[in-house]
Amino acid sequence: MTAATTADVLERTRAFVRRVCLPAEARFGGHDVDPALRAELQEAARAAGVFAPHVGREHGGLGLGIADWPGVFEAAGYSLLGPAALNCAAPDEGNMHLLELTGTPAQQARYLAPLARGELRSCFAMTEPHPGAGSDPDALATTARRVDGGWRIDGAKRFISGADGAAFAICMARAPEGATMFLVDAGTPGFEVGRTMPATDTIVAGGHSEVVLHDCVVPEEAVLGEVGEGFRYAQVRLGPARLTHCMRWLGLARRAHDVALDRTAERELFGARLDQLGLAQGLIADSVIDLAASSALIQTAADALAAGRRAAQETSIAKVFVSEAVFRVVDRSIQLLGGDGVVHDLPVARFLTEVRPFRIYDGPSETHRWAISRRASRLRGAEREA
Amino acid sequence: MTAATTADVLERTRAFVRRVCLPAEARFGGHDVDPALRAELQEAARAAGVFAPHVGREHGGLGLGIADWPGVFEAAGYSLLGPAALNCAAPDEGNMHLLELTGTPAQQARYLAPLARGELRSCFAMTEPHPGAGSDPDALATTARRVDGGWRIDGAKRFISGADGAAFAICMARAPEGATMFLVDAGTPGFEVGRTMPATDTIVAGGHSEVVLHDCVVPEEAVLGEVGEGFRYAQVRLGPARLTHCMRWLGLARRAHDVALDRTAERELFGARLDQLGLAQGLIADSVIDLAASSALIQTAADALAAGRRAAQETSIAKVFVSEAVFRVVDRSIQLLGGDGVVHDLPVARFLTEVRPFRIYDGPSETHRWAISRRASRLRGAEREA
Amino acid sequence: MTAATTADVLERTRAFVRRVCLPAEARFGGHDVDPALRAELQEAARAAGVFAPHVGREHGGLGLGIADWPGVFEAAGYSLLGPAALNCAAPDEGNMHLLELTGTPAQQARYLAPLARGELRSCFAMTEPHPGAGSDPDALATTARRVDGGWRIDGAKRFISGADGAAFAICMARAPEGATMFLVDAGTPGFEVGRTMPATDTIVAGGHSEVVLHDCVVPEEAVLGEVGEGFRYAQVRLGPARLTHCMRWLGLARRAHDVALDRTAERELFGARLDQLGLAQGLIADSVIDLAASSALIQTAADALAAGRRAAQETSIAKVFVSEAVFRVVDRSIQLLGGDGVVHDLPVARFLTEVRPFRIYDGPSETHRWAISRRASRLRGAEREA
Amino acid sequence: MTAATTADVLERTRAFVRRVCLPAEARFGGHDVDPALRAELQEAARAAGVFAPHVGREHGGLGLGIADWPGVFEAAGYSLLGPAALNCAAPDEGNMHLLELTGTPAQQARYLAPLARGELRSCFAMTEPHPGAGSDPDALATTARRVDGGWRIDGAKRFISGADGAAFAICMARAPEGATMFLVDAGTPGFEVGRTMPATDTIVAGGHSEVVLHDCVVPEEAVLGEVGEGFRYAQVRLGPARLTHCMRWLGLARRAHDVALDRTAERELFGARLDQLGLAQGLIADSVIDLAASSALIQTAADALAAGRRAAQETSIAKVFVSEAVFRVVDRSIQLLGGDGVVHDLPVARFLTEVRPFRIYDGPSETHRWAISRRASRLRGAEREA
Repeated sequence: MTAATTADVLERTRAFVRRVCLPAEARFGGHDVDPALRAELQEAARAAGVFAPHVGREHGGLGLGIADWPGVFEAAGYSLLGPAALNCAAPDEGNMHLLELTGTPAQQARYLAPLARGELRSCFAMTEPHPGAGSDPDALATTARRVDGGWRIDGAKRFISGADGAAFAICMARAPEGATMFLVDAGTPGFEVGRTMPATDTIVAGGHSEVVLHDCVVPEEAVLGEVGEGFRYAQVRLGPARLTHCMRWLGLARRAHDVALDRTAERELFGARLDQLGLAQGLIADSVIDLAASSALIQTAADALAAGRRAAQETSIAKVFVSEAVFRVVDRSIQLLGGDGVVHDLPVARFLTEVRPFRIYDGPSETHRWAISRRASRLRGAEREA
Repeated sequence: MTAATTADVLERTRAFVRRVCLPAEARFGGHDVDPALRAELQEAARAAGVFAPHVGREHGGLGLGIADWPGVFEAAGYSLLGPAALNCAAPDEGNMHLLELTGTPAQQARYLAPLARGELRSCFAMTEPHPGAGSDPDALATTARRVDGGWRIDGAKRFISGADGAAFAICMARAPEGATMFLVDAGTPGFEVGRTMPATDTIVAGGHSEVVLHDCVVPEEAVLGEVGEGFRYAQVRLGPARLTHCMRWLGLARRAHDVALDRTAERELFGARLDQLGLAQGLIADSVIDLAASSALIQTAADALAAGRRAAQETSIAKVFVSEAVFRVVDRSIQLLGGDGVVHDLPVARFLTEVRPFRIYDGPSETHRWAISRRASRLRGAEREA
Repeated sequence: MTAATTADVLERTRAFVRRVCLPAEARFGGHDVDPALRAELQEAARAAGVFAPHVGREHGGLGLGIADWPGVFEAAGYSLLGPAALNCAAPDEGNMHLLELTGTPAQQARYLAPLARGELRSCFAMTEPHPGAGSDPDALATTARRVDGGWRIDGAKRFISGADGAAFAICMARAPEGATMFLVDAGTPGFEVGRTMPATDTIVAGGHSEVVLHDCVVPEEAVLGEVGEGFRYAQVRLGPARLTHCMRWLGLARRAHDVALDRTAERELFGARLDQLGLAQGLIADSVIDLAASSALIQTAADALAAGRRAAQETSIAKVFVSEAVFRVVDRSIQLLGGDGVVHDLPVARFLTEVRPFRIYDGPSETHRWAISRRASRLRGAEREA
Repeated sequence: MTAATTADVLERTRAFVRRVCLPAEARFGGHDVDPALRAELQEAARAAGVFAPHVGREHGGLGLGIADWPGVFEAAGYSLLGPAALNCAAPDEGNMHLLELTGTPAQQARYLAPLARGELRSCFAMTEPHPGAGSDPDALATTARRVDGGWRIDGAKRFISGADGAAFAICMARAPEGATMFLVDAGTPGFEVGRTMPATDTIVAGGHSEVVLHDCVVPEEAVLGEVGEGFRYAQVRLGPARLTHCMRWLGLARRAHDVALDRTAERELFGARLDQLGLAQGLIADSVIDLAASSALIQTAADALAAGRRAAQETSIAKVFVSEAVFRVVDRSIQLLGGDGVVHDLPVARFLTEVRPFRIYDGPSETHRWAISRRASRLRGAEREA
């Protein structure tokens, strides 16, 4: 991908989001993007040449490498509707990435191709109710046993984003050989999507569902990649997925910041324009710094992934910093907006509850800090020995 | 008030809130307490001997002085329904205080008495749309002109808590002699309660409304206290009102903290109980410290008010610290709850948006910091000269 | 003690510190108060009626109870020389308190009386080199064995404040019955005061020393209180001692803040007085809030101790908050002073390294947070069961 | 510069600093690097092929471009002696950069060449006593008037790093045409280096001096670049100079962090290794994140400068974030070291006062925040209009 092309895609994406997505937000009731609106936006994105920027050209995407995603994904995330329009929203985006890397040609043809075209949605079923897999993936309690003609899966899942309406799930279960991923079609007997959890965030299509697998039998070819490689694949998926979350949410933080800047440029208080009052300037500067540091950390981690490294430390660091910085930026923007900041006449009041869960989803900050510290101690130990 | 009596009231209030209010929360749909539920809870509070703790005995209350309010109000605020049940919720509580201090006997009989008994609700109409009175009260734009038989009031208000359903408003307007407060009955021609603003907080009965006064004529006896004393009275009301907000919200923060502590005592993660993991303990300890410092600052300011001082610096300091500490405590509690913290199955997910506006209402933190700094510089200047 | 008397002592102390101690600071080279200067200041303090405010009248002090100490100790701490002048500096002040509570009449006559009169200094020898007693007192490694005519003590200590020049040490050692405190006279064979540790703080008379006890034999009457009660006594000493540290350091923080306020009142920057620039006002306000919260938490803990409670949670909370707030206040004062803040022409540049260790001494913040969290979980557990 | 070469230089620098500079620190008394030690270290650096990495090959340096400086300068800053050894310490490094960009061939031959070879030191005389040039450069009060044969300069300077012992100064003065830079040789009559200011930081060779220019006459060829271009040149110097400060101090922060990690790997507390206790892990992780974000922001700004942009916003952001992060990292390292962290037996205790001034020098954080906020508001205004 040449730099010129990437700059092109970025410019087109920014224009598209401002021209198409922001105005469409008024039609977005929350808790789910209406399928018709989604289809309309995706059609417009195709026409604007910004659809599926992260998908390989052979699967109909723009073919950008991960080092070129940050700006584009952030531009998409500037609108609550942008990622869905570009078909780069979670969890589909991470699933596409995983299928590209680990799917057989047949699996890619059957699952990846229509997913990349936006014809269907998918979900990723890993998280379980306590005391199953949550912050600690080792606690995986869903089981997969070999049965005649394939595998029988049993277990309970929750926080399964997009399950309601998904055409298929990538489902994590514990086989005798170890954690394994299975492609489970919606409608498979024993695969039941339960209630939508009343979470504070609302922009994932389908929301977050509870899912039960009970005597759910899938054929042998439903195994994604290799049996027993589930945790390794989860890492393959989670590193980039964690980072694309950062990119998209950073876009929303920038949006909140811009809304606040616009207001401070027109408000007068105590005889001065609000953006000329020192205490407001302090909030603005702190947000500028948070946005810049987030951006720099994301790019650093994306470059490491692009170089073929696992980059667990870099993506963990980015995840913690960006999820917390995004929350601070939204919070400061609300503060700069004053009373208007906590009233739903402006979009920003809503952003606080949209971004809050990101400090918990994909590993709470505390779990990442624990892992970051351990890696740092280990690395330093190796240096001491060298 | 003897210490024994206060300890009694406190104990009874805690028991009442746990026994009556917490279970009733399931019947609270949000954005308004159903009048029937409110009446039922108030009846129960009367029976439990905890109704109107802050109101003088001559007006049917328990007669606690402000130095004895902190514990009791905090205990009430532990439930979203507690302040309404005890009839010590905003804005009525502040209005009662103001009417006790400045109302004529006739005004007290007509407005204070039924308000203290919980028979009606009231509102306080000061805040205006930009560029009117907001963070800067001097910008007051609503006017009051003498007309035959009284005053004509014209202007627009917003964020008028409880206006929808209030029997009367205490309305701030600019008379030729200066800012003045007027008692305006609901139903007075020209006093129009507009739309309820879609704010993120929902527990004030009636919500926050826009109000228009247009050619609204009130009689001479509608003037509360003296003409031209409006700003002084506003200070009389705002100091304690600011502090009682702190007390109530601190109760909600303690509730969030308790819910989190309960969960950390039963969850296992990485082989340890959650409340034994250092990073969780750090969050818990920081919240304990925030709660203790909030409590200590509230008591300090309440003691200063009880001693008859204006205590503007003390109440400003308490307002900034407590509003920010309460937000941090709720935020940490969510973090300790993990995924459950951002799902509305638990009450805490909702608390974040309930408490967020308090950092803006009654003067944003930045306005208070500006005032705190100026007072500190002035005070130190006086010390230098002495 | 009547309130009037306490107010009197407070007023006299403030005047004394400003009149006598601040000017004397120019004669204070650091790392130790010259004994002659110390004697001169103590004589002046006696003449001013402010000497030994915390000591019982029967031992020649002013007899203030601990609830009345906060203001007075803070006023003393406003100068680096104030606590020494009033004879309420660490570690002597804590040792006096301990001797008053646990010493026999003979021990009080021999050790407490001259200590209270300022005729000699003392030290408290508990902390040991790793892996001995430090953050974890249970690791106490110094031993005490019964020998003919008394006890033999062996072990190593460090961070023993005031050991160099002390007339006696209260020394903690592990007897067969448990941790025990011994009164060890300087000069006792086998009690060796080693090098002064090059710590960043310098205002403790004698500095912090390494001490070795090697075959150090003391008579039976050297046991302070009861054998085996050392840890309990340590708590008796540490609660108040921790709190008086807070009081004194809070005084120094207020001093830094005042120096900064004075400078911001005379400096012009970008066409405005520095104390009128919003970003400076933010720093000032944050320090005012930190000082107020520190003061409120100290008073809360002092009241709890005065009521006869152990108040471990209250003193831990105060220790963490105040030690961190004091550091922040000094740091912000430096920032407000700009270049002058980091040059030793002003006293404030030095304060940063004076106050930094307090976040570590007497239990690092992390140890206290751990203890605070555990107590909170335990307390909440008891509430759940009730 | 190929990537391979840069990686080479980086590797050699790391090895050199560990092999040569760290051991030499024991010979560094502080407040000045002994000239003989300095010469010895520079000789060793030349032998190791790491001398003057930032200087063009035509002037005897390694010729790295600014995009390649961050890692190398950080590696140098890992030791207090590294920058001096590599001849990339402030203020010489910034002066070399300025002379390369603006000096005439004759000026380069006379000043730059020996400076690049480490044969002499220099200083940059801009900052003045209040109310002259400090945070606000426009307040420049030193004057330059044309006299027979050149210019006469009059004024007072302070915080002139390295003036004591410098062979020449680049001196900023206000000519009729505007601010102008002059090359003033040490020994020029009327150029007087006054007392060394007792600043808390000590590693700049020569310390920070007061300088007086009184009837100081310099020839016409002493003008650096163009008359009246002083402020523009100051920006040319300050952007990179600000950033190289960040790089070097980041190295020292990493050093503190490594010292703390080493200790936490060997200490046991409460039955666990210190680096396995959650509260310690939180401190470690926060420092890892601070270091990573600092590094990413520095690289972002360096890349912008390398691309030929002025990058005022990027360097301001980096300056604020890094100076504050470095302080936090050093502070956390001290905390992790416990009592050992505040004793000068380890080097870290000293680092706190070494790094503290960087939040003030080169523009206090508040001045940069003010500028960052204004630029952000301006940029957003331009976007709104587009």
